[in-house]
Amino acid sequence: MNNEQIIQQMKERVFKANLQLPNEGLIKLTWGNVSEINRDLGIIVIKPSGVSYDTMQVKDMVVTDLQGNLLEPDSLRPSSDLPTHVVLYRDFPAIGAIVHTHSVHAVQWAQAKRAIPAYGTTHADTFYGNVPCTRDLTEEEITKRYEEATGEVIVETFREKALDPLACPAVLVSGHGPFTWGENVTKAVQNSVVLDEVAKMATVTEQLSPKVTRIDQFLLDKHYYRKHGENAYYGQN
Amino acid sequence: MNNEQIIQQMKERVFKANLQLPNEGLIKLTWGNVSEINRDLGIIVIKPSGVSYDTMQVKDMVVTDLQGNLLEPDSLRPSSDLPTHVVLYRDFPAIGAIVHTHSVHAVQWAQAKRAIPAYGTTHADTFYGNVPCTRDLTEEEITKRYEEATGEVIVETFREKALDPLACPAVLVSGHGPFTWGENVTKAVQNSVVLDEVAKMATVTEQLSPKVTRIDQFLLDKHYYRKHGENAYYGQN
Amino acid sequence: MNNEQIIQQMKERVFKANLQLPNEGLIKLTWGNVSEINRDLGIIVIKPSGVSYDTMQVKDMVVTDLQGNLLEPDSLRPSSDLPTHVVLYRDFPAIGAIVHTHSVHAVQWAQAKRAIPAYGTTHADTFYGNVPCTRDLTEEEITKRYEEATGEVIVETFREKALDPLACPAVLVSGHGPFTWGENVTKAVQNSVVLDEVAKMATVTEQLSPKVTRIDQFLLDKHYYRKHGENAYYGQN
Amino acid sequence: MNNEQIIQQMKERVFKANLQLPNEGLIKLTWGNVSEINRDLGIIVIKPSGVSYDTMQVKDMVVTDLQGNLLEPDSLRPSSDLPTHVVLYRDFPAIGAIVHTHSVHAVQWAQAKRAIPAYGTTHADTFYGNVPCTRDLTEEEITKRYEEATGEVIVETFREKALDPLACPAVLVSGHGPFTWGENVTKAVQNSVVLDEVAKMATVTEQLSPKVTRIDQFLLDKHYYRKHGENAYYGQN
Repeated sequence: MNNEQIIQQMKERVFKANLQLPNEGLIKLTWGNVSEINRDLGIIVIKPSGVSYDTMQVKDMVVTDLQGNLLEPDSLRPSSDLPTHVVLYRDFPAIGAIVHTHSVHAVQWAQAKRAIPAYGTTHADTFYGNVPCTRDLTEEEITKRYEEATGEVIVETFREKALDPLACPAVLVSGHGPFTWGENVTKAVQNSVVLDEVAKMATVTEQLSPKVTRIDQFLLDKHYYRKHGENAYYGQN
Repeated sequence: MNNEQIIQQMKERVFKANLQLPNEGLIKLTWGNVSEINRDLGIIVIKPSGVSYDTMQVKDMVVTDLQGNLLEPDSLRPSSDLPTHVVLYRDFPAIGAIVHTHSVHAVQWAQAKRAIPAYGTTHADTFYGNVPCTRDLTEEEITKRYEEATGEVIVETFREKALDPLACPAVLVSGHGPFTWGENVTKAVQNSVVLDEVAKMATVTEQLSPKVTRIDQFLLDKHYYRKHGENAYYGQN
Repeated sequence: MNNEQIIQQMKERVFKANLQLPNEGLIKLTWGNVSEINRDLGIIVIKPSGVSYDTMQVKDMVVTDLQGNLLEPDSLRPSSDLPTHVVLYRDFPAIGAIVHTHSVHAVQWAQAKRAIPAYGTTHADTFYGNVPCTRDLTEEEITKRYEEATGEVIVETFREKALDPLACPAVLVSGHGPFTWGENVTKAVQNSVVLDEVAKMATVTEQLSPKVTRIDQFLLDKHYYRKHGENAYYGQN
Repeated sequence: MNNEQIIQQMKERVFKANLQLPNEGLIKLTWGNVSEINRDLGIIVIKPSGVSYDTMQVKDMVVTDLQGNLLEPDSLRPSSDLPTHVVLYRDFPAIGAIVHTHSVHAVQWAQAKRAIPAYGTTHADTFYGNVPCTRDLTEEEITKRYEEATGEVIVETFREKALDPLACPAVLVSGHGPFTWGENVTKAVQNSVVLDEVAKMATVTEQLSPKVTRIDQFLLDKHYYRKHGENAYYGQN
């Protein structure tokens, strides 16, 4: 497969993944964006900015280098969140795709400026521990380099908490909303689906049992490692 | 394009926009109404009153002058909320379309008689600040000129708070529900979609963090001006 | 039109109305039932008991006299709630159709044993005042004549509160769920739709404003009489 | 019908029941699993592990003996929860099918580590009393024999509370989620639907009336025995 074919397939996957967001009920209007990276070719493919999902086509997907520079003539403008994706791809070398949504239940926690506690096995199956929430950005960060700083504060959060981005493939940006990622675009979208579901579960769990605590570490381990790592025994591989 | 063609197109847009309301889950039954104004021709096109969405046709849309007088023979009766639309068009000269719904989450805030605080960027992308709630109408206003007074109390709210109707294209009428508007009918409907979504987010944000405060002014500025005004850089234009 | 044709049309309307219940999201499985009365012919048509909505046919609708006695050979067994319908038709002479559902939000209030307060105009457009909740049934009422006693406690509630069944075409049976009715089957189903919607609104209204009170009487009057009675000016008639 | 045909029909029923779970909104992705037992033949048919519902086929269903040993060549790997099903079939001899989901509202109660109180007749129609929640598993149970211990703690819960598995065909596993069962696969899936619905109702019932208590025993009896046992009079049989 030549480079052109590889890029065409990336565009098709990114296009299809973007359409999944409204179909899964994760976004309204043109909110949300999905990108995929090919580290060998040094390119990122991302959704164009503000194009209606009704009229968007595969060829509208935007191709950039790893710094976010446009690589194709007559390219549409990329998602305004591209600089956030660029930073995450740079500092999280294991990830292959990124999804940003404004899914209702995850945003509720982001606006509350709280991490989502690991209250159950649904959470533990995908996220190895609480899903963290970043600190607020400063005025300078917001006014001078907003989207880049958004990526940086995510990286800072993972570094300070010593989190592995693939073990916890999601974050809440304070006052804003969720980013998720994964080894590939399918996983990254699934992680957005799971995140919103566990956010919805956690809210009412607290309402029903205000003193509830997160699940035991050994239950967290059990469920996470049933599905991930060398000794995984979930699925067909 | 002659006037007849212009009016026909307005009817088609207003008809289609009304059908969007149940399709987007914003209303039940025949609740809700959409209108569009053409200030050059001095006409308003609005949904007829109480006609089932299943049988409603383009030709049923009602054409009035800027005072709300019917302009076509054999016209159906216009939405009973027409006088509210007339007042808003008169006092908000920049708006081109109005939408009224009883969408669940916005109504919940209207019934609670509370403005929706700007708790996050989803809100800030569309509404530059809190979405205000009017005062209650007086008995005299309600009994003597209810629909007109509804428009006037909206205008009063925006004047007292020095709000720009296009910077905050939505209001909650106390004990009643939301009105949204926009430069055109597409935007006005989108604003109803966004309003209900941010209302739903805000409720649970408060539940999760009872002491949460609205987002910083500079984050509000950043998100609003990413999408609006001269320096906007969201979308393709 | 002869009696046979009238009954056939009743069966078609009742059949179609029953299918609306799951389509409107008001029920799961085979919960819920709809009936219609023809007082001239002295008959009631009601859904059969426990027949799956996937296989149910028009001819399965059950025809009874005004005491609930089966009138057709090879009739299926009627809804087990038929005796409740019989009592309501007997004591509420103005109603022409009855709907019983287990719609989630109305049931939440019924289980909380609380009337739904008239918190806004969405409520007032259909229900002239709070939607009442019955007292609990006694052990004797439940064990000896449960379904009949359910109808009687509804009638008792309306009599004690001096409510007009057409002005408040809904009730919550304590610990159980809602019944709605109307002049005809279309209205009765619509009233179930509205009831669940206003129940959902009211819950969060209280959450957002714990001290909120019901809307002013003059606003209640205004909205109710916009749509009902001699001076109504909503709709096309 | 020979054994091969019986097994083929079991596979078809189990396949179809698994697809119902996402269609009923009970699960996301590949969460959840359904199995059916034939005690005469000594076999269990269960969903394969982690196969996408989009590509899963009838022939992918996994056949095991009553200890969970694979019986067919080239079998896919069974659901990782198979050992839980094996224990439940062994200790609950009256049940014919089992369903496990991560349905949102039931999980909220499981994560809150609370039984779902019988707050109304919707609950009583299917569950004769509160739906119990197990104790937490110990570290040893989780690390050494997780799925088997999950089955055992369910059995322990029913034994300690002296519950009849067919009178209360559901349980919440603490910190995890619901299992339901029934005489056959249709009933078992329906019980998952009802469980999530009553979980959703119960949460808001408590919010609306924090001091609410479960319904009277005689109302519980009435509704349960309307549908179950010798004197049932709901449905056509």
